[in-house]
Amino acid sequence: MHAVLVTEPGPPENLHWGEAPTPEPGDGEVRVRVAAAGVNRADLLQRQGHYPPPQGVTDTLGLEVAGKIDAVGPGVTKWAVGQEVVALLSGGGYAEYVTVPEGQCATRPSTVGFEGSAALIEISATVVSNFDHVNLAQGETVLIHGGAGGIGSLAIPYAASLGCRVVTTVGSAPKAEYARSLGAQVVVDYHGDWEAELKEATGGVDVILDIIGAKYLEANVRLLKRKGRMVTIGLQGGTKGTLNLGLLLNKAATLTATSLRYRPATEKAHIVDEVVARVWPLFESGAIPLPPITYFPMSQASKAHAFLESGENVGKIVLVAQ
Amino acid sequence: MHAVLVTEPGPPENLHWGEAPTPEPGDGEVRVRVAAAGVNRADLLQRQGHYPPPQGVTDTLGLEVAGKIDAVGPGVTKWAVGQEVVALLSGGGYAEYVTVPEGQCATRPSTVGFEGSAALIEISATVVSNFDHVNLAQGETVLIHGGAGGIGSLAIPYAASLGCRVVTTVGSAPKAEYARSLGAQVVVDYHGDWEAELKEATGGVDVILDIIGAKYLEANVRLLKRKGRMVTIGLQGGTKGTLNLGLLLNKAATLTATSLRYRPATEKAHIVDEVVARVWPLFESGAIPLPPITYFPMSQASKAHAFLESGENVGKIVLVAQ
Repeated sequence: MHAVLVTEPGPPENLHWGEAPTPEPGDGEVRVRVAAAGVNRADLLQRQGHYPPPQGVTDTLGLEVAGKIDAVGPGVTKWAVGQEVVALLSGGGYAEYVTVPEGQCATRPSTVGFEGSAALIEISATVVSNFDHVNLAQGETVLIHGGAGGIGSLAIPYAASLGCRVVTTVGSAPKAEYARSLGAQVVVDYHGDWEAELKEATGGVDVILDIIGAKYLEANVRLLKRKGRMVTIGLQGGTKGTLNLGLLLNKAATLTATSLRYRPATEKAHIVDEVVARVWPLFESGAIPLPPITYFPMSQASKAHAFLESGENVGKIVLVAQ
Repeated sequence: MHAVLVTEPGPPENLHWGEAPTPEPGDGEVRVRVAAAGVNRADLLQRQGHYPPPQGVTDTLGLEVAGKIDAVGPGVTKWAVGQEVVALLSGGGYAEYVTVPEGQCATRPSTVGFEGSAALIEISATVVSNFDHVNLAQGETVLIHGGAGGIGSLAIPYAASLGCRVVTTVGSAPKAEYARSLGAQVVVDYHGDWEAELKEATGGVDVILDIIGAKYLEANVRLLKRKGRMVTIGLQGGTKGTLNLGLLLNKAATLTATSLRYRPATEKAHIVDEVVARVWPLFESGAIPLPPITYFPMSQASKAHAFLESGENVGKIVLVAQ
């Protein structure tokens, strides 16, 4: 089959459209003929050699797809050949075919088109599982960094739908406008003194969904209120930061960090079930808007990566099969 | 009344036995005639000027006492003059009299003497509330730093009583023997390569009860297993440390930190109720041994502090009223 290959760790141009063995579904797995694959920031890291796949997982990039089941392995009970699904992957989405444990597949929201649905399962699973992890509750103030990105596009309206006050950081005026349209009540530009502006506007926040990591660690901890919780899900600003444990102690605050990819298949299947039950109805009712999606042909994955790295995109990026 | 006063922030000799106004119980408060006051590491910090009392609380040291109620304020329903209690305080224990919200008082375990009971409520409240905070569960491995200190003296046998595997760090061979007698299954000397020894012996731990802070932060995070939780309750090794968020993310681990002192009275009262229900029966049945206690006259609080700072003591230190 064809797949996007990484010649060697490095810049986007190291991605090329080549040949790879077609995978065979194992016990409890289905094989999906890929129609479209979502692009995530984690893919950029993996391309650079910084985010290795879990043991036993293909080193082909791609954490989510939409497609049609074209083969099922032994023991599969939930799906049959020919069904259209979206799938949350541990890797392998940038290809013509991918195999995945059947529990990580789902039908798409009824109001969403086939190719566009490739953009939804990774952000939905990330947002739902992490807000659950830190017990985000109605009436709380939540800070979502990078409000106009893929995660922000879902995290803002989802948190707003829970009855939270949403505040966010963005990098430009158009992105600020977009974040406001999603339901963010306070939007600040991260090129300025965002910490002071957020402190002034909120007095402090209960929960932070953080995609930056080390660079924002001290400011984030300062912004947390008593019993505040931060969950880090991305490390765009580096991994090693300074933690003021005295401040954490005075606030009885909590820091945690998770990665969807390294969770066992049973946990991923549970999260997918939660997404179908709790997020898909919000898309279907229009309570949450679909994120804007920019499409690239899969053979031009290098251009898609360059575009995501440019910081220009709003919403999600999807690779469409040839 | 007499009370231990701090002439100015500094060494133990800055403590002296002087005069202070006798406090009057406010709404919902009782006044306790102090028979004995427990000494805690937090008192050393406060003496040095690093641990100010919460707003509205006396600046006299002392977070726990045993004594007899000698006056009650308006609205007190649970206690009457003449009853013997132990009390969890926000401050003021190193004195002849102290006032406290009635919910922070409790009867002592039936098998414990009056003066010795002053040593139990702070460690019990700290251990129970923090193990609850990180959901310590049966069968888990828990690392307790400073196994022979006040917290360790209770945390080790309490965790063992929950069915946990307890590992600990200590500073000498006699302390190691003491920690083993409490139920610790792995005991390492912190003067050596304790991280490597614990890694070798356990492969990683589920929960860490940390009294050190910054100095051990990186090693502690490295020792956590997947979904591990660390709760920091002391900062003997400094406040600002390096946090590797990448490691936290790969492990889906959680860091939190708490201080009993800064919690509102309603939370403290709830914790005291939990201690009476869950720890006192373990003392009474002998399932948990009383910690060794070293007594000093309250007028010699400076000697008690110097002794605690020496690192020589095992278990708890108590000041006895004149």
